[in-house]
Amino acid sequence: MNLPQSERIVVLSGGVGAAKLLEGLMKVVNPADITAIVNVADDTNLHGLHICPDLDTVTYTLAGEIDSQKGWGLKNESWKAMEMLKRYGGIDWFQLGDRDLGTHMYRTHRMLQGASLTTITEEITSRLNVEVTIMPASDDPITTIVTTPDLGEMEFQDYFVRHQHNLKVAEVRFEGVDRALPGPKIIDTILSASAVIVAPSNPIVSIGPILAIPGITEALKTKRESAVAISGIIDGKALKGPADRLLLDLGHEASPVGVARIYSEIVSNFVIDNADDQHAKHIEELGMRCLTTDTVMSDPKKSAKLCSALLSLFFPEVLI
Amino acid sequence: MNLPQSERIVVLSGGVGAAKLLEGLMKVVNPADITAIVNVADDTNLHGLHICPDLDTVTYTLAGEIDSQKGWGLKNESWKAMEMLKRYGGIDWFQLGDRDLGTHMYRTHRMLQGASLTTITEEITSRLNVEVTIMPASDDPITTIVTTPDLGEMEFQDYFVRHQHNLKVAEVRFEGVDRALPGPKIIDTILSASAVIVAPSNPIVSIGPILAIPGITEALKTKRESAVAISGIIDGKALKGPADRLLLDLGHEASPVGVARIYSEIVSNFVIDNADDQHAKHIEELGMRCLTTDTVMSDPKKSAKLCSALLSLFFPEVLI
Repeated sequence: MNLPQSERIVVLSGGVGAAKLLEGLMKVVNPADITAIVNVADDTNLHGLHICPDLDTVTYTLAGEIDSQKGWGLKNESWKAMEMLKRYGGIDWFQLGDRDLGTHMYRTHRMLQGASLTTITEEITSRLNVEVTIMPASDDPITTIVTTPDLGEMEFQDYFVRHQHNLKVAEVRFEGVDRALPGPKIIDTILSASAVIVAPSNPIVSIGPILAIPGITEALKTKRESAVAISGIIDGKALKGPADRLLLDLGHEASPVGVARIYSEIVSNFVIDNADDQHAKHIEELGMRCLTTDTVMSDPKKSAKLCSALLSLFFPEVLI
Repeated sequence: MNLPQSERIVVLSGGVGAAKLLEGLMKVVNPADITAIVNVADDTNLHGLHICPDLDTVTYTLAGEIDSQKGWGLKNESWKAMEMLKRYGGIDWFQLGDRDLGTHMYRTHRMLQGASLTTITEEITSRLNVEVTIMPASDDPITTIVTTPDLGEMEFQDYFVRHQHNLKVAEVRFEGVDRALPGPKIIDTILSASAVIVAPSNPIVSIGPILAIPGITEALKTKRESAVAISGIIDGKALKGPADRLLLDLGHEASPVGVARIYSEIVSNFVIDNADDQHAKHIEELGMRCLTTDTVMSDPKKSAKLCSALLSLFFPEVLI
């Protein structure tokens, strides 16, 4: 669909779920009109390399380079570096493909040169011919720390990958977020957006760190009437990842209502899956318009259909 | 050949030439009786990774893992990370194979944990079943800086790889060497050695930095009578690399005599190639015994033969 000129869509984004949404969105609006603001709090340093899992998942997906079976990493990947690393007894629980290493090497080199993550992301996406603008939520270091009753504190990738999120969680905090600034164009981009979409990413550890950066929630509040969130919880479960258990562990409901409450200050529209239609009433009671539809993005076509439905909330005059 | 019990051979080592010598030496004495003291001044940091070209060339060669056609890097190598790096416009003049990256990732991770290069080298060589003891000359950072009249100062790999050593050189210095300590077992190993072999490596930039580490030359001087060097210069030329031009640029003779003069304080035996037999007299005039033989190590068999000849200087009683 063609939006009226210079209408821009902003998407708050984690990794896999957001990447699928963006892939669909690219099919219904001009990719150049889309900006993804991506979580950086699960970035990590391994082997001296700076690794940005959410940025890379979004970038690789929109570049058509994602390993679509795994949902992360590059297609046509090989694992020779990892094999050597295993032989040395090195850290082998975080899989880094050979092609993927090229990205981390480039990024790390540029960071050591003093380039910002925003600039580096522009360079990488430009070389991979990604037309969507991808912005890290902040250029400053923010580190998600998960406190587990069983094993104490750990960095996010330790919890998520090493322990495959099979741990109870007592607390999640974003180290450094109080001192972090939004990326240089983030606030302007939000304030000038025609619509804001909160992707069905993990509300606690993917969208949470973006909202915690000083200034971002305040900017989003001014856009509440033009903003929509999609529930990543369907029938009490996350399609992927630990969002349902994290919500419960941290005292939320593991339901669309629980997610809607978290976003109630920044969105006035909320999308739930057909499987959850009994929740529509409760969401409307939170002061939100509720759209019930098929939210399972099992292929790009279904993602595009979901995006068309979302956009019709804000651009009803545009033929879809 | 079997040396008398607990006779230990120490080899001062750069990269490719030394690796070939060590490969031959392993064939004539028990590998467990050999210690290689390896140059670290051309180590470099690229893409956040700590890279030790000489240590790795020696390790890979003795592990039977070297790409023997190239003389450096691992066999069965692939280059997918480099291909991605090129796509991003990253540094592509220093080739890093995918398997090789596993080594640099492991080393960098261990260094960030605070492990010394000596410990890490023990770990790597042990995992690769290398029986020769390989020791970095120092655990402290030493950086070879090459001053060129045309392009000013640059790090060694810039000169050697990026500019393919096609530059005049005005000065070579080893930044940090004054504050560097020899590796923890280096001095004891030298002092207890039965024989010291200076490999036919580049005397300026491979052996030079080892000799410049405070304490090492002093220890070697006590071993002068049990020490031998092999000329890396044959008929005025280095078989590989810029040693001949470096010698000339820095005011030395590009001949076995020029090399012998550099080592005259630490060795009393010097090996020259048959092609240079006219120089034998001049070398003896420097107070050295001169052995003339075939020094071109075109295969491990020829390396072994050269090593047998060397060792017969110190162990004439042993049948070779």
